[in-house]
Amino acid sequence: MSKVDAPPQLLEVASKVDQRLTAILEDQSDRWRQVDPRLSEAVDELSRMVASGGKRLRAAFCYWTWRGFADPSGMVTTPADGPAVPPLTESAVIDVGAAFEFLQVFALIHDDIMDDASTRRGTTTVHVQNARRLQDLGWRGEARRYGEGVAILVGDLGHVYADQLIGPVGGRARQLWDELRIELNLGQYLDMRSAAAGTLDLGTARQVAIFKSALYTIVRPAQMGACLAGVTSDEELDLIDRFGRPLGRAFQLRDDALGLLGDPAELGKPVGDDLREGKPTELVAWALAKADQSQTERLADIGRAGLSDDEVDDLIQIIADTGAIETNEAEIARLVTEALSVLEVLPVNTEARAALHALAVYVAHRTF
Amino acid sequence: MSKVDAPPQLLEVASKVDQRLTAILEDQSDRWRQVDPRLSEAVDELSRMVASGGKRLRAAFCYWTWRGFADPSGMVTTPADGPAVPPLTESAVIDVGAAFEFLQVFALIHDDIMDDASTRRGTTTVHVQNARRLQDLGWRGEARRYGEGVAILVGDLGHVYADQLIGPVGGRARQLWDELRIELNLGQYLDMRSAAAGTLDLGTARQVAIFKSALYTIVRPAQMGACLAGVTSDEELDLIDRFGRPLGRAFQLRDDALGLLGDPAELGKPVGDDLREGKPTELVAWALAKADQSQTERLADIGRAGLSDDEVDDLIQIIADTGAIETNEAEIARLVTEALSVLEVLPVNTEARAALHALAVYVAHRTF
Repeated sequence: MSKVDAPPQLLEVASKVDQRLTAILEDQSDRWRQVDPRLSEAVDELSRMVASGGKRLRAAFCYWTWRGFADPSGMVTTPADGPAVPPLTESAVIDVGAAFEFLQVFALIHDDIMDDASTRRGTTTVHVQNARRLQDLGWRGEARRYGEGVAILVGDLGHVYADQLIGPVGGRARQLWDELRIELNLGQYLDMRSAAAGTLDLGTARQVAIFKSALYTIVRPAQMGACLAGVTSDEELDLIDRFGRPLGRAFQLRDDALGLLGDPAELGKPVGDDLREGKPTELVAWALAKADQSQTERLADIGRAGLSDDEVDDLIQIIADTGAIETNEAEIARLVTEALSVLEVLPVNTEARAALHALAVYVAHRTF
Repeated sequence: MSKVDAPPQLLEVASKVDQRLTAILEDQSDRWRQVDPRLSEAVDELSRMVASGGKRLRAAFCYWTWRGFADPSGMVTTPADGPAVPPLTESAVIDVGAAFEFLQVFALIHDDIMDDASTRRGTTTVHVQNARRLQDLGWRGEARRYGEGVAILVGDLGHVYADQLIGPVGGRARQLWDELRIELNLGQYLDMRSAAAGTLDLGTARQVAIFKSALYTIVRPAQMGACLAGVTSDEELDLIDRFGRPLGRAFQLRDDALGLLGDPAELGKPVGDDLREGKPTELVAWALAKADQSQTERLADIGRAGLSDDEVDDLIQIIADTGAIETNEAEIARLVTEALSVLEVLPVNTEARAALHALAVYVAHRTF
């Protein structure tokens, strides 16, 4: 498959969400600067990460299922049980989209501490930036601890702003918001624990992918969008699950492939880090299953501390030699086909179906 | 003042909140253990910290203002504007109290990483416990990074459970919840930044105390309690602010004194750490202001890396010699008097006034 650019239906939502994020952060920065200029530094670090990019995918899945289920008149929708209620306005749905992006920045800032990543979205990570700041200013204490402490707090602040935007949302959508945050944290815990314990089996990799990618990135945002449009039927939420779960796995498999073979300049982060950290991925699990004895011995280096760039390149070559990359591509294709067949029967309007189709192809075949 | 025990009005609320916390955590642990036993480990670490103690002060301030403003009939209350609404039931207010405790555990777990504290509430901190676990099990990677990563996630999970309990709360109380979380994070940022930069002036110490103690521990929980009882008047919320702000400062000044002179066994953590970390406290600011030239030179050691126990003891003696501890005690007494004079005119019922009085005396004169 050739390069797939971000579809206009993603860019349209991203632009609206970006405006909202910028407005909130400028307002908060001004507010706290007036109280004490030191306080706004934490807000400004959050702004730096929010402004550095991000595809706004979760916002787009939420927005397009909302628009797909909202009454065409845009006025009211009648839930199966309970009184007629107006669906949320577009600006309220964009607020929920902005909440996903604050939550994503929170998760990335905290993940980058756990992985000691130095670059994210092409810019210096918060913990590295603030460790350097302590050194540059000649402040006291350990630079690493200070930088990581600032990053913990800046991430926590992003989590609060995310939740603040969800404040007016109640009912089922609110429950899904709580659920996705628990799944996100537990998925990240399992990811980190498995890397430490060297648990690289397929079942673990898939469990992590379902929590961190399928549920968090696609299923829950899309289900929340449907709920915001007044959907209360389990049947429709289950269909969204059956669309989002395979697509979310495809999203993660693409991420795993790009993490080994992608262009670091385009990705905004180095390649090969998953191998250095010994992350459980389906790609590595397949490689281990397909490897002959000599390959197996060499793949045991995955997750070993202090791998050189050349050693990482060698590992990537061995993984390619096992045929695992073709397996990964075939599985992506199969999962996207499965998701698109469910999308066919999802009772959304034509415009939303086209948008969700374009988003599905993009998440599975993006180049960064 | 002789030793002040926790008043029955605190213990009564703490007991109800503890039951709720335990029920939620057992339910979550069971749920995730069934999905994958590795996932429940994160929940169980949170349980360990929740069960290790805590005074449940924030829950008590929220509960007693709620009870103080709720209609004596306990049925309905009429806001100044808008329709008559039923006040929250006691069990719903206990849920909000449990939310404060989850939020407090979240904040403590993250703070303990920033301070590299090894003991909290008499038990091993989450990051230290999990760093040891990696070593004990012979897992891969750096123990410190792994332990801190687990603690970041366990704290984040506590934050989510806190929010989940606030889910049904809307209106002004919800705004206050968002506000207190922003204030908590920014206060902690200012605290950590000031320790690093060596900014130990009185104004900084007071700003940190207002954010981290006055607003977070007393003003916002008490204002939320009033809102949950149907209070919508700015006048009453301002009175609570005028009660809670001086009392919250007194709470922090007591904390600062106990941090130097308290009993480590009773506190559940070592003494002198504020001096090792160079934390901005009013106590230290007063000592610096009162010190003669030779004392000033020796106090410059505050915040120096690697202070020995003897050096910390010497610093505590110098601070005592300056008279700063008497100043601290006099200020606590003055602040409590100010708070209690506002409590006199706070339009709560007699039972709640007595409870808030007992809580005020306790927070200012507790021994741990």
